[in-house]
Amino acid sequence: MEQRLSLITLGVRDLAIAKRFYEALGWTSGAAPEDDVVFFQAGGMIVALWGRDQLAEDSGVEDYGGWGGVTLAYNVRSPAEVDAVIAEAEAAGATIPRHGAETFWGGYSGVFVDPDGHPWEVAHNPHWTVGDDGSVTLAP
Amino acid sequence: MEQRLSLITLGVRDLAIAKRFYEALGWTSGAAPEDDVVFFQAGGMIVALWGRDQLAEDSGVEDYGGWGGVTLAYNVRSPAEVDAVIAEAEAAGATIPRHGAETFWGGYSGVFVDPDGHPWEVAHNPHWTVGDDGSVTLAP
Repeated sequence: MEQRLSLITLGVRDLAIAKRFYEALGWTSGAAPEDDVVFFQAGGMIVALWGRDQLAEDSGVEDYGGWGGVTLAYNVRSPAEVDAVIAEAEAAGATIPRHGAETFWGGYSGVFVDPDGHPWEVAHNPHWTVGDDGSVTLAP
Repeated sequence: MEQRLSLITLGVRDLAIAKRFYEALGWTSGAAPEDDVVFFQAGGMIVALWGRDQLAEDSGVEDYGGWGGVTLAYNVRSPAEVDAVIAEAEAAGATIPRHGAETFWGGYSGVFVDPDGHPWEVAHNPHWTVGDDGSVTLAP
C-alpha cells in the first residue's frame, strides 16, 4: 500500500445543508442539485459529502452517533490566517470550540466544527512547510 | 479557505499498535519510539496517529466511542490491486467487513477497518485518474 490517501468522505445528515456550508467557505464542486453525493477536488485528493447512514452501511460499520476519533486539519501560513478562517467558518454556521491561540507544540491554532460534528483544526505550524499549491510537508 | 486538506488525525487507543499496523502496510515515519504522536507524509498531506482521548480534548468534542461518520479511501489502478491491498491489510490485522467486489457506482472496492475502528475503502474507480504520484483527479 502506497503512503497516501485518496478520498475522505464525511457522513452528513442533510446533504444540501452540508454542501452549502462548504460552499460558504469558498469551496466549489461540479455536483448537480439532484446528486446524492458531493465531491470536492482538494489538491491531489478528494473530500466527499454523503449521507451518514449510507456511508456507515457502505463502510461495514455500526453507527451509534457522535464523533468517531477523526479530526481534520487545514494548515495556513500565519496566525492571522488562522483567525480569519475561524471567523469565516463561524460566519458560515460552524461552532467554535476553540478560538485561535498559541498551542503547546509551538504553533497557533483554533478549531471549528461543521454542521455534522466534524472538527477541523485550523493551524499555523512554523515547523511545517505549506507550499504554493497548498501541499504540506513535514520538517525534514 | 482554500479547497484543500492538510492533515487527518486518527485517534488511537494504543499508539504502538496503531503505528505497527500502518508500518505493516509499508508506511514509514520519522517518529521516535518515545514520541506520543506519529506523522506519516502522505503525498501533499499528512496522516497522524494520536491518542484518541487527547485528540477529543484538543478538538473540543465529546467522545462516546465508536465510528463517527468519516471513512477514508485509497484509490488504486486496477481491481486486482484492490484485492491485493485488502489481503495485505487482513494480514496486518485489519478486519474486513467487505471484500473486493463490483460496486453500484461502476467500480470495484473492498473495505478494511484498522485496529482502532477507522474504515478505509480500497477502490478502483474507472472514472477517476490516479496519477503517477498517487494524486487523484475527479472526472472533468
